[in-house]
Amino acid sequence: MARVSSLLSFCLTLLILFHGYAAQQGQQGQQFPNECQLDQLNALEPSHVLKSEAGRIEVWDHHAPQLRCSGVSFARYIIESKGLYLPSFFNTAKLSFVAKGRGLMGKVIPGCAETFQDSSEFQPRFEGQGQSQRFRDMHQKVEHIRSGDTIATTPGVAQWFYNDGQQPLVIVSVFDLASHQNQLDRNPRPFYLAGNNPQGQVWLQGREQQPQKNIFNGFGPEVIAQALKIDLQTAQQLQNQDDNRGNIVRVQGPFGVIRPPLRGQRPQEEEEEEGRHGRHGNGLEETICSARCTDNLDDPSRADVYKPQLGYISTLNSYDLPILRFIRLSALRGSIRQNAMVLPQWNANANAILYVTDGEAQIQIVNDNGNRVFDGQVSQGQLIAVPQGFSVVKRATSNRFQWVEFKTNANAQINTLAGRTSVLRGLPLEVITNGFQISPEEARRVKFNTLETTLTHSSGPASYGMPRVAAA
Amino acid sequence: MARVSSLLSFCLTLLILFHGYAAQQGQQGQQFPNECQLDQLNALEPSHVLKSEAGRIEVWDHHAPQLRCSGVSFARYIIESKGLYLPSFFNTAKLSFVAKGRGLMGKVIPGCAETFQDSSEFQPRFEGQGQSQRFRDMHQKVEHIRSGDTIATTPGVAQWFYNDGQQPLVIVSVFDLASHQNQLDRNPRPFYLAGNNPQGQVWLQGREQQPQKNIFNGFGPEVIAQALKIDLQTAQQLQNQDDNRGNIVRVQGPFGVIRPPLRGQRPQEEEEEEGRHGRHGNGLEETICSARCTDNLDDPSRADVYKPQLGYISTLNSYDLPILRFIRLSALRGSIRQNAMVLPQWNANANAILYVTDGEAQIQIVNDNGNRVFDGQVSQGQLIAVPQGFSVVKRATSNRFQWVEFKTNANAQINTLAGRTSVLRGLPLEVITNGFQISPEEARRVKFNTLETTLTHSSGPASYGMPRVAAA
Amino acid sequence: MARVSSLLSFCLTLLILFHGYAAQQGQQGQQFPNECQLDQLNALEPSHVLKSEAGRIEVWDHHAPQLRCSGVSFARYIIESKGLYLPSFFNTAKLSFVAKGRGLMGKVIPGCAETFQDSSEFQPRFEGQGQSQRFRDMHQKVEHIRSGDTIATTPGVAQWFYNDGQQPLVIVSVFDLASHQNQLDRNPRPFYLAGNNPQGQVWLQGREQQPQKNIFNGFGPEVIAQALKIDLQTAQQLQNQDDNRGNIVRVQGPFGVIRPPLRGQRPQEEEEEEGRHGRHGNGLEETICSARCTDNLDDPSRADVYKPQLGYISTLNSYDLPILRFIRLSALRGSIRQNAMVLPQWNANANAILYVTDGEAQIQIVNDNGNRVFDGQVSQGQLIAVPQGFSVVKRATSNRFQWVEFKTNANAQINTLAGRTSVLRGLPLEVITNGFQISPEEARRVKFNTLETTLTHSSGPASYGMPRVAAA
Repeated sequence: MARVSSLLSFCLTLLILFHGYAAQQGQQGQQFPNECQLDQLNALEPSHVLKSEAGRIEVWDHHAPQLRCSGVSFARYIIESKGLYLPSFFNTAKLSFVAKGRGLMGKVIPGCAETFQDSSEFQPRFEGQGQSQRFRDMHQKVEHIRSGDTIATTPGVAQWFYNDGQQPLVIVSVFDLASHQNQLDRNPRPFYLAGNNPQGQVWLQGREQQPQKNIFNGFGPEVIAQALKIDLQTAQQLQNQDDNRGNIVRVQGPFGVIRPPLRGQRPQEEEEEEGRHGRHGNGLEETICSARCTDNLDDPSRADVYKPQLGYISTLNSYDLPILRFIRLSALRGSIRQNAMVLPQWNANANAILYVTDGEAQIQIVNDNGNRVFDGQVSQGQLIAVPQGFSVVKRATSNRFQWVEFKTNANAQINTLAGRTSVLRGLPLEVITNGFQISPEEARRVKFNTLETTLTHSSGPASYGMPRVAAA
Repeated sequence: MARVSSLLSFCLTLLILFHGYAAQQGQQGQQFPNECQLDQLNALEPSHVLKSEAGRIEVWDHHAPQLRCSGVSFARYIIESKGLYLPSFFNTAKLSFVAKGRGLMGKVIPGCAETFQDSSEFQPRFEGQGQSQRFRDMHQKVEHIRSGDTIATTPGVAQWFYNDGQQPLVIVSVFDLASHQNQLDRNPRPFYLAGNNPQGQVWLQGREQQPQKNIFNGFGPEVIAQALKIDLQTAQQLQNQDDNRGNIVRVQGPFGVIRPPLRGQRPQEEEEEEGRHGRHGNGLEETICSARCTDNLDDPSRADVYKPQLGYISTLNSYDLPILRFIRLSALRGSIRQNAMVLPQWNANANAILYVTDGEAQIQIVNDNGNRVFDGQVSQGQLIAVPQGFSVVKRATSNRFQWVEFKTNANAQINTLAGRTSVLRGLPLEVITNGFQISPEEARRVKFNTLETTLTHSSGPASYGMPRVAAA
Repeated sequence: MARVSSLLSFCLTLLILFHGYAAQQGQQGQQFPNECQLDQLNALEPSHVLKSEAGRIEVWDHHAPQLRCSGVSFARYIIESKGLYLPSFFNTAKLSFVAKGRGLMGKVIPGCAETFQDSSEFQPRFEGQGQSQRFRDMHQKVEHIRSGDTIATTPGVAQWFYNDGQQPLVIVSVFDLASHQNQLDRNPRPFYLAGNNPQGQVWLQGREQQPQKNIFNGFGPEVIAQALKIDLQTAQQLQNQDDNRGNIVRVQGPFGVIRPPLRGQRPQEEEEEEGRHGRHGNGLEETICSARCTDNLDDPSRADVYKPQLGYISTLNSYDLPILRFIRLSALRGSIRQNAMVLPQWNANANAILYVTDGEAQIQIVNDNGNRVFDGQVSQGQLIAVPQGFSVVKRATSNRFQWVEFKTNANAQINTLAGRTSVLRGLPLEVITNGFQISPEEARRVKFNTLETTLTHSSGPASYGMPRVAAA
């Protein structure tokens, strides 16, 4: 009977295996996925760290239910001083925010001209290797970036960053997996032009990951040599096969790219003029080469809501930055002081990914079932998703709470539950009295007591008196 | 051997379990879902009823293959006289049709002004509780609705209804789950501002449902008190915790909201003027506050097809109501007499959800395989989906057959199989003779005998004579 | 113990079954499908052949990972001389390319007028069957098609083809399953107006296929008779029930459709004039009846890249053919000579389906992991998908290599890895030296040695000398 016995245990094992599998499928593999039946949200931290020579890339697990529901993935790039994030591109639209530091950024847009040249009269001279210093380079636009910059990147466009400051340059990026612009599956996929990723695409499920190499690595060296008209040895060098520096490398010596003077000084007209008249290809729109892709959200003079005692809120949508209409993402930057509260609100037409850049806050989030699915602290470096329709209230619990929200709509609309432009203000008194079974007097206070639109004090004696009239 | 025997039965059970699971997966869990391999359609009735104090909400099972294929869910709201459907919003775009009765409707669009005020000079006075009647309210637009009204609602926008008539107010709504405007999963999700739903979201699969509460319920009462600057007791009252009236409540006493005079009398210019100049926020387009969202499909003077002996057809697309371009839905209203037939047709670029408001009809539907997947009666209160490309013919079998069709395209195109603008008319005779192996004479009759475009008699002696020429 | 033994083998079988299933599910059934984790691509040939009386339809398996990832299906139509592909329509947008031969094409667009008439004064006369030859037909536009024509077709629009040449007419078509224009599931679905398909929709998984019949077959004959006002016998004839000719039938006798003179001679103005003023319905845009849907990609005078010694490349996007903006597809036609190379490139915002019309080439494709996922010959009649972001290089290995690429974006953007408008050209020298650890001299050669933009020689002595300056 030993045989029967082992057979039994074998079948039991089989049963367990099967049940485990079925349970997993029940959760994941349904026709009607219910990844948005979120009973609990969590402040999320990165699940994977990719270390490089001069920095690291921290990746959030995009299979986490709240990111899955939001249809995005998220990553943080920490580039050390003199670190160069080598050019790569993605299969998705990307919106990035510079959380710390400053640096340079370049993108290469297909068919656009190399408008940055060493001198106004471009005359490359090659009089032998000894005089190579005289060579004048030309390349596409290079921009200064600094804390607060919000950068839109379209799919397939290669981008690089260089930290020319002293402190680390920290950039966070959201990748829109659910958009029609991503024509692959719902996984983020970096394609490396240079560099590599020895750990492999650890965030991908379902296959064993090999080290990730650059694109040149995949071609035969003789193909590269023919295509670039270079010798085989240089072609092999482009494959980075013996390179273990990762995708953020340390620049040796000066980083002499052509760059404009810092903001405030740069002759913008000239530069854009050239872009507009540059050569084009592939049926691109006339303006794509000079389209503005960056805006700064830390400039207090452009805040949408500004209260000296409480803080400010700035939004960036496709009215401000038209390329956002194309990539269907937008952003909000907030900075509030201790005990300030962002009035409860919901996103009407977008999911929001909230990332804390400084300080900490107490946040409550309420789902469609009226359940509080999050009630806790979020602090610097953490992320939380606020799905479409879910209501959220934020109260700073540190000296200053600063965050950025990425939204999955080029013109995300906010509805507030309280305040001068709130949904309660728009409802007739009778709807409020009947809905909540309260007296007309109570309903009036509910409707009119809060005069602010967005920010208020979260403590101190509330004014329970008569409502004041808002100046419209 | 008893042990072996039980082991055998155990393994058999396992096998059955596994096969059952695999079969279910085969139907539901594939990468290439084939929810549109529909061999049979059914006239559907609601699967869930949510009872409230003054009405009920009837919900169709959106997991039914034909709704799943169409990417929508469907609900019917029955609001009794003096019933108030409390404000709620959805994660999807919604198109509603008033099937019976009349009432009032209000929406609260974020950032738009409270353009409805008690008097032209708004001066709220609060001279003590005794004189509270003198307080003048202000709120967003309130509209009269009546049978035939078709109402577009964008995601995240709160909406309420009040039945100020004597008979029940019946509204049917389609929710576009498959659109990019729904940023959550493919489930309909109401968010309640007031009221509740003691039965829970019974239409959702995959988790045990708890009673559904309003949004305020999810926040801490002290948060609500701080945000609204009200006392804790009123804040708790907003949570509706002791309320079991559901989401349709009975209004006690008069329902004194500010409303325009009934249609034909209302000074529309004035009202829109105000809306246009109201205050805005969140980067909304200048016109969103005054955008028309309602049109009546029962007005015979606007019918697209009108035959006194047969009936009429009215369509509502984004040319009529531009907001439909945004929500990507449109509607068709039909009303035909006994023995009238809607000529066989298919939807080129949309799925259609047909809901019967009155009477009954004999309907045949044909799928891509040339199979008749439906051949039966549909009668008042029933729904049937007609997927893209499927051909359908309708014949009234009661004195009058009236229906509404919701279509998943802002400009749904119909192709007819018969009649003056049909596909057969557009084909050369030679294609018809060769395709069907019929004589040129027969082909001519096939092409030209039916002169109507949409409606014809379904009985009586057909004219088998010579084709007549249509006046183009 | 025989029983135990058989039980064991039974359980083992079960285990194998289960594991097989689980493995398949692991690949297919996940919430996060990873159909784009492509470790290997293959040159694909048709998996199903549907034979007809006068031709055949060859269908590629759209479940193949690379097509699944690309969200499309693909078919080839081989229509013999005098063969008529009977009118059918699809649930998806379609882009077709005439690979060989010439013929006639007709589409029937709902609501558009029958602008093709036998004489300028249309007066049908029916003076008895004997004189039926005198009848003058009228129908919608008929177009000549020939090799190189690229034809856009919107969902739900019926289309027919007739081969009026001597050699077979070969048309290849891509169907965009992933677009929002397909409102059914991700399967291609032809709907037949005439003809049939005795083999059934063999490409569909998940149900047993029955023979596919035409739409009329699904209605009751009496319904057809009433709708078309014809006798029951003719109605039955329309059902093609005794017809086994398939969907491509042989035309007996002359095919006397009204057609314009061949290109170069046709009075286009007149024809379009009529279309513009034809009658319309269903709220269609004024221009849809006369919208151009066809362009020829074999005309060397419109090539985007033309090098007498190497070959040419022509693209067709929504700037050339505005209807492509609506169906979100575009095309590229290439023709290169032996040993010419298309410089390595990637599609920034589209998947590409490459189909070889003549000759053969050596192709290398590199995925996001830097792995070569294809390295082989593709030859006439084969297909290969190049997913978004994947880099590809093509070298002709026969006397002439000609292909067509269908792209899943109305304005697909190409980025090149080499050449005058390449990504390397747009990068600063410092990024290249640091990224690849090469000297400034090497970096300069990498950047500037190749002056061509798209096509170059794939053999012969490469010019390893000094870079030459491109005239911009």
